[in-house]
Amino acid sequence: MPPRRNDLVVARPITFLSDYGTADEFVGVVHAVIARLAPDARVIDLAHGIPRHGVVQGALTLARTLAFAPAGVHLAVVDPGVGGARRAVALRTAEEERVLVGPDNGLLVPAAERFGGIAQAVDVSASPWRLEPVSATFHGRDVFAPVAARLARGEPLTAAGAPLDAAALVPLSLRRPRAVGGGVVAVVAGVDTFGNVQLLAGREDLELVPGVSVRVSAGENALRAVVARTFADVAAGEAILYADSSHALAIAINKGDAAAALGVRAGDEVCVAAG
Amino acid sequence: MPPRRNDLVVARPITFLSDYGTADEFVGVVHAVIARLAPDARVIDLAHGIPRHGVVQGALTLARTLAFAPAGVHLAVVDPGVGGARRAVALRTAEEERVLVGPDNGLLVPAAERFGGIAQAVDVSASPWRLEPVSATFHGRDVFAPVAARLARGEPLTAAGAPLDAAALVPLSLRRPRAVGGGVVAVVAGVDTFGNVQLLAGREDLELVPGVSVRVSAGENALRAVVARTFADVAAGEAILYADSSHALAIAINKGDAAAALGVRAGDEVCVAAG
Amino acid sequence: MPPRRNDLVVARPITFLSDYGTADEFVGVVHAVIARLAPDARVIDLAHGIPRHGVVQGALTLARTLAFAPAGVHLAVVDPGVGGARRAVALRTAEEERVLVGPDNGLLVPAAERFGGIAQAVDVSASPWRLEPVSATFHGRDVFAPVAARLARGEPLTAAGAPLDAAALVPLSLRRPRAVGGGVVAVVAGVDTFGNVQLLAGREDLELVPGVSVRVSAGENALRAVVARTFADVAAGEAILYADSSHALAIAINKGDAAAALGVRAGDEVCVAAG
Repeated sequence: MPPRRNDLVVARPITFLSDYGTADEFVGVVHAVIARLAPDARVIDLAHGIPRHGVVQGALTLARTLAFAPAGVHLAVVDPGVGGARRAVALRTAEEERVLVGPDNGLLVPAAERFGGIAQAVDVSASPWRLEPVSATFHGRDVFAPVAARLARGEPLTAAGAPLDAAALVPLSLRRPRAVGGGVVAVVAGVDTFGNVQLLAGREDLELVPGVSVRVSAGENALRAVVARTFADVAAGEAILYADSSHALAIAINKGDAAAALGVRAGDEVCVAAG
Repeated sequence: MPPRRNDLVVARPITFLSDYGTADEFVGVVHAVIARLAPDARVIDLAHGIPRHGVVQGALTLARTLAFAPAGVHLAVVDPGVGGARRAVALRTAEEERVLVGPDNGLLVPAAERFGGIAQAVDVSASPWRLEPVSATFHGRDVFAPVAARLARGEPLTAAGAPLDAAALVPLSLRRPRAVGGGVVAVVAGVDTFGNVQLLAGREDLELVPGVSVRVSAGENALRAVVARTFADVAAGEAILYADSSHALAIAINKGDAAAALGVRAGDEVCVAAG
Repeated sequence: MPPRRNDLVVARPITFLSDYGTADEFVGVVHAVIARLAPDARVIDLAHGIPRHGVVQGALTLARTLAFAPAGVHLAVVDPGVGGARRAVALRTAEEERVLVGPDNGLLVPAAERFGGIAQAVDVSASPWRLEPVSATFHGRDVFAPVAARLARGEPLTAAGAPLDAAALVPLSLRRPRAVGGGVVAVVAGVDTFGNVQLLAGREDLELVPGVSVRVSAGENALRAVVARTFADVAAGEAILYADSSHALAIAINKGDAAAALGVRAGDEVCVAAG
């Protein structure tokens, strides 16, 4: 049951993550549709700068940000298959009753796993709540936004579409980090606007001994970094290997751009080795 | 009369569109002014990436997004003539009682036409609600935001300024699509962040036969596109001609940038021809 | 005491300014943390495009925008020393009881001075309200956001951390404008997205006689500008010297980019001279 405040039914908050960017009206139109259907729902823009069609980066960003957001409806749209055969889905997590809404391409999977996995799944591709006519290219507006808004108002998940076996959902394929002679090879999970490189690896994959120097390489590019806690531990222009604010291994250059120095972006592999 | 909820007068929602971009504080300051005057009003940012001084692109974006937004006050600022002799206006539409606020340079006209035209117009250039002293360069803050906020609170349009004959408003000059030997020449209405090119033309201007190949040209640049429903209908790197989510003719390259390939931006002309 | 509405305690509004940009999830995660702790607080994004680590530009932007925002909690994060020894602080202003939250690096000082100076200061570096574990690199999320949210809910400033002598705060070092033979040399306070150059100087530093031509120079670059009120006073491509919407001296080129023509950015010096 949705929370009540002063005898008013209050809509659940909605978080929104996409690869729409902020140059166009896409994000604004999704907000507009939500405001029509759920005028009381708070909408929190988590991120709209996910690289276009970056399902892996979007999935990892969603998973690591959701723990900081209030439980509610979590709309995510990174959707290279829009207009094709891919399903649109709404999922309820086992813990905290969070509801995830988006395309069935693996985008929602890591976030669901953070909250105990999927307790219930619904196929909303042909949801009765869709805006008609449904366009072929903007399901964020025509399918996902109205579904998210009505779920935020407290309408039941079962009314959003057809029941779906969670085991039938498309998984997210991620290369896990692998040990190589005292070091580790890991996939770049994301690059932030400062050029800091986050790896799909954590402290459990590589022991971090403060002050030790490591060699970080990607293809023909390489740099030396020192294991440190934060930028302030080294001089401007020097690189660090650290556990970032999401507890992931990351490489940064103080007042510099590590991604440019390594020539990497999300999905590339980076090798971190001793010596 | 504004809606009431639980014995509280609730402000109408305000949508906001501009060419301010998001790098500076302009959008934030407009939000700040609105929050002072109408603390309960929900503000929906429709788009702030309209090209600088792009009155035509702003007008068309406003018109096509407004149908998705709740009826309320609709603030739009693309204003190359700020500080000069152009009027500032507030307009009430014949249908849905939407109120449009912005400069009198044609920006608001297509949106008003979508809602039955203008039922009432007011010149707010010297509105008693202006923030004094009014700057010469930032009427979004000093004129439009306070007018929008007080109208959202339910204050009467007639109190916002001096009555104005709707026939005296500056029109928006748009070149309509014209037929040329089995094809059509149309103006580019806008380019989105993915490089998709939206034309100021619709299905009524060109018959779309799925699977047919067409030649799309702009000056010396040309490409072949296939008439399709969505990106998923063609391989990566191939171009499609389609009716976009606003029902306008559009050209896109699957995982590519059609605007760059054609070398066009808003206001340029594109020719779509058979053969 | 926080305002009440209909027997509900209503949270104070929170403004938010940073150098986080909008490409990543940093701004979104701060919003998420605030929404968990203060679901009723309105959050107004003032600006997130402050140049990275631009403490001076951030401080001046905060000071000039805050007068337009409702009194409340004012969160600002431009924080090159994050994770190092710099303090995190919360300050109450003498006038309007505004509460400023951010790093103790001078960022908050000019804004506080606009409201009568600092009446009370608290060191929140080890605030009991911090999110544990506190990361070394994202205090916006782990320290500043929870402190801002709880203060917005009406919790007392004294509970946020340890008392602090306002005289111990780090000042902002700014070069004041200096007169040179009929003209003035002033620091660039900021450059907006249109390339307009705002100086850290006002009408009190240079007499503005409309129509007079002046020479504006920066290093080897120079241009002629006419003293005017607004862009509309000159032809496209011509430069003006004017008092901008913040009453600061500014240089702009009508439909052009004055910062590029002068080759300046925030912190550089510009000379404005007669003749």
